Amino acid sequence: MNNSSPSGLSKIGEFGIISRIAAGVVTHAGVVTGIGDDAAVTTPAVGMQLLTSTDMLLEDVHFRCIWHDPYRLGRKSLAVSISDIAAMGGIPRWALLSLAIPANLTLDFVEEFIRGFLAIAAENHVSLIGGDTCSSRSGLAVSVTIMGEQFPELIVRRSGALPDNDIWVTGTLGDAALGLMLVEREYFKGATGAIARLLDPTPRVSSALALSEAGLVTAMVDISDGVLADYGHIAEQSGVGGSIRISDLPLSADFISVTAHLPAIPYQLALTGGEDYELCFTAHRTNREKIVSCMKKCGVAVTRIGIVTNFSGVKVVNPDGTQFKVEKEGFNHFT
Amino acid sequence: MNNSSPSGLSKIGEFGIISRIAAGVVTHAGVVTGIGDDAAVTTPAVGMQLLTSTDMLLEDVHFRCIWHDPYRLGRKSLAVSISDIAAMGGIPRWALLSLAIPANLTLDFVEEFIRGFLAIAAENHVSLIGGDTCSSRSGLAVSVTIMGEQFPELIVRRSGALPDNDIWVTGTLGDAALGLMLVEREYFKGATGAIARLLDPTPRVSSALALSEAGLVTAMVDISDGVLADYGHIAEQSGVGGSIRISDLPLSADFISVTAHLPAIPYQLALTGGEDYELCFTAHRTNREKIVSCMKKCGVAVTRIGIVTNFSGVKVVNPDGTQFKVEKEGFNHFT
Repeated sequence: MNNSSPSGLSKIGEFGIISRIAAGVVTHAGVVTGIGDDAAVTTPAVGMQLLTSTDMLLEDVHFRCIWHDPYRLGRKSLAVSISDIAAMGGIPRWALLSLAIPANLTLDFVEEFIRGFLAIAAENHVSLIGGDTCSSRSGLAVSVTIMGEQFPELIVRRSGALPDNDIWVTGTLGDAALGLMLVEREYFKGATGAIARLLDPTPRVSSALALSEAGLVTAMVDISDGVLADYGHIAEQSGVGGSIRISDLPLSADFISVTAHLPAIPYQLALTGGEDYELCFTAHRTNREKIVSCMKKCGVAVTRIGIVTNFSGVKVVNPDGTQFKVEKEGFNHFT
Repeated sequence: MNNSSPSGLSKIGEFGIISRIAAGVVTHAGVVTGIGDDAAVTTPAVGMQLLTSTDMLLEDVHFRCIWHDPYRLGRKSLAVSISDIAAMGGIPRWALLSLAIPANLTLDFVEEFIRGFLAIAAENHVSLIGGDTCSSRSGLAVSVTIMGEQFPELIVRRSGALPDNDIWVTGTLGDAALGLMLVEREYFKGATGAIARLLDPTPRVSSALALSEAGLVTAMVDISDGVLADYGHIAEQSGVGGSIRISDLPLSADFISVTAHLPAIPYQLALTGGEDYELCFTAHRTNREKIVSCMKKCGVAVTRIGIVTNFSGVKVVNPDGTQFKVEKEGFNHFT
C-alpha cells in the first residue's frame, strides 16, 4: 500500500487511523480503559485535584505545513497543553487528541504527526487515552485536551502574586517569535535554535514541579502570548500591577546574533512575542537564592525581570527609569 | 455596539468572547477553579473513576449553518459528548469548549451558540470549566471535551456482552438520518420531529444511569453511527456476534408517516443512519421485565431488537428468517 498518497487515508478509513494510533500508545499511571470505548476510564490519584486544559491548533492560523514538519507539529500539539499543566504546578497525566484531516493529507504525514505526539507524551509520562478523527473540508485541525493532577496545596494559580514579589522567567524570551519571523520569510538557514523553539517548544514541567513542590512561588503562568500579556494575566487576577525591566529580559545567543545587524535590540519581540512556553512566576524576595539553586538543579536558566507593584497596570521601564514604549501587546485572535 | 456584524467579534476580541462565555457559566459539583487560569481545577468524587471523551464538529462536515440554528448547534455540540458519558453509565460533570470562529460569523451567532451550550449543560448539571477560542480561516470548528464520573463497579463498557443476551435500544431509530435527508433537500416543513432529532438530540443520561445503577446491562454504547455499526463495536469488543431482527427496529410515528409513500419501509435508514444518540445495550434475558419497568420510570421507550450470538459478525434478519441485505454500513470518515 502506498501510504504517501492521500488515498492511503481513505483506504484505511477512520477506524484504521484510530487503530494505528492506538497501536503506538504506551500507558502510564492511572489508565483503566484507554482508546476504544465511548469514554476513557482513569483513576485520579487519592487526595489530588484534577487539572484540565484544551488547545486548538489550525493550519494557516497556528501553523503552516510548508514549514512545520509533521513530527514536530505532533510534538508541539501536545507540548502547548502540557505547558498549561506545568504552569499550574501540576503533573501531566492523560491526553485526548482530535484530528480533522483534509483529503490531500498523506497517511505518512498523519503517522509522523502521531509519532511526534506520542514521543513527547512518553517523555512526559502522559498517556493518550482517546480522541476523535474526522475529515476536514479545509486545513488540518488539531484539538488536544490534557489532564493533570496535583495536591491542592501545591497547585499554583495566576491569582497569588503580592506587591513587592519578584517577577521571574525561565529560559530566554523572543526566540519563538524570531523563529516565526524567519520561517514566514522562508529564511530557514540561520538561527536554527530560534526556529526549533518555534517548531518544537519544551514545556517546563520538571522546573514548574520543582518550584511548586518547594513552595517557592506565589503565582505562575506559561508564556504563550508574550511575557507582557501573560504577566498581565497574573497582574489582573492577583489585583496587582508590575514593573518589568526591559534590559533584564533574558535573550538567547541565537537571538542576539541574528539581530546584531539591527540598530537596536528588538526588545519588542522578547516582550510581546508568543509561543516561548517558558514560565513566568512571582515569588517573595526572600526566596531568591532558593529559586536560583532549584532551577540550577533542573538545568534551566532563570532571571528576575521585574517587581510586582501595588499600582494597577504593567509598566515596562528602560535602564534610565524612563518608560519603554510597547508597540503591540501579545497575540489576540480576532483583533 | 452592533453585535450582529462580524466586526462585533473583532471589537470585543478573544478575551471579550471568553469573558462573555464565563459570565453565563453556572458551576455545579466539584469545580474549584473554572475558566480563567492555565488549567481548570476540579475535585474528583472519592471512590469514583474519571470518564473522558472528546468530539469535534466541523461546519460543512458535521453541520451546515444554513440549516442548523446556532442555539441548537450549541446544544448539540455538548449533547453528543454527554451521550458518550451516558453510554458508560457515568454522571456527566465538566466540559471544555473550543471554538475556531471564521471572520464572517456574527457575535449574535456566537452568543446564541453559547446560550444553547450552557442551557443543555445546566439541564445535565454539567459545568463549563474551560476551553480555547481562536480565529478560523475556513468554517466554524467546535471541539468539546467532557468529563464524567462513576464508581468502578457501575461503569458499563462495550466489552461485556455475552452470547444469548438480548440486544435492546431506547427510543426510535432512523429519525436523525431522515431529518438529515430532509434538510439536505431543503425540505423543512414536514417531519419536524425527525429534524428536531437531528438538530437537537437528547442524550439518554438518566435512562443510562438507571440501567447501570440497577446493574441490569452487560454492555452499552450510544448510537452515533447507526445501530448496526454501534452494536458492531459491542460485538467486536465483547468477542461475540449478533442477530438483529429488522422488523423489530423501533420507528417513530413521524418516520412512518413521512416514509409512507415509499414502496417499502426504509429500514436501511433505521439500521445505518447515525446521530440518533439513543442507547444500544445488552442484558441477560432474566432482566427483561426489570428493564421495561426501569425505562418506564424514566419515560423512555425501550425495545428488544435481537440476540447476542456466539458466531462472529452481526446478521440482520427478516421476519421470514432470511438475511436482510444491508446496503451501507454506518458513517465512516475518509471512505
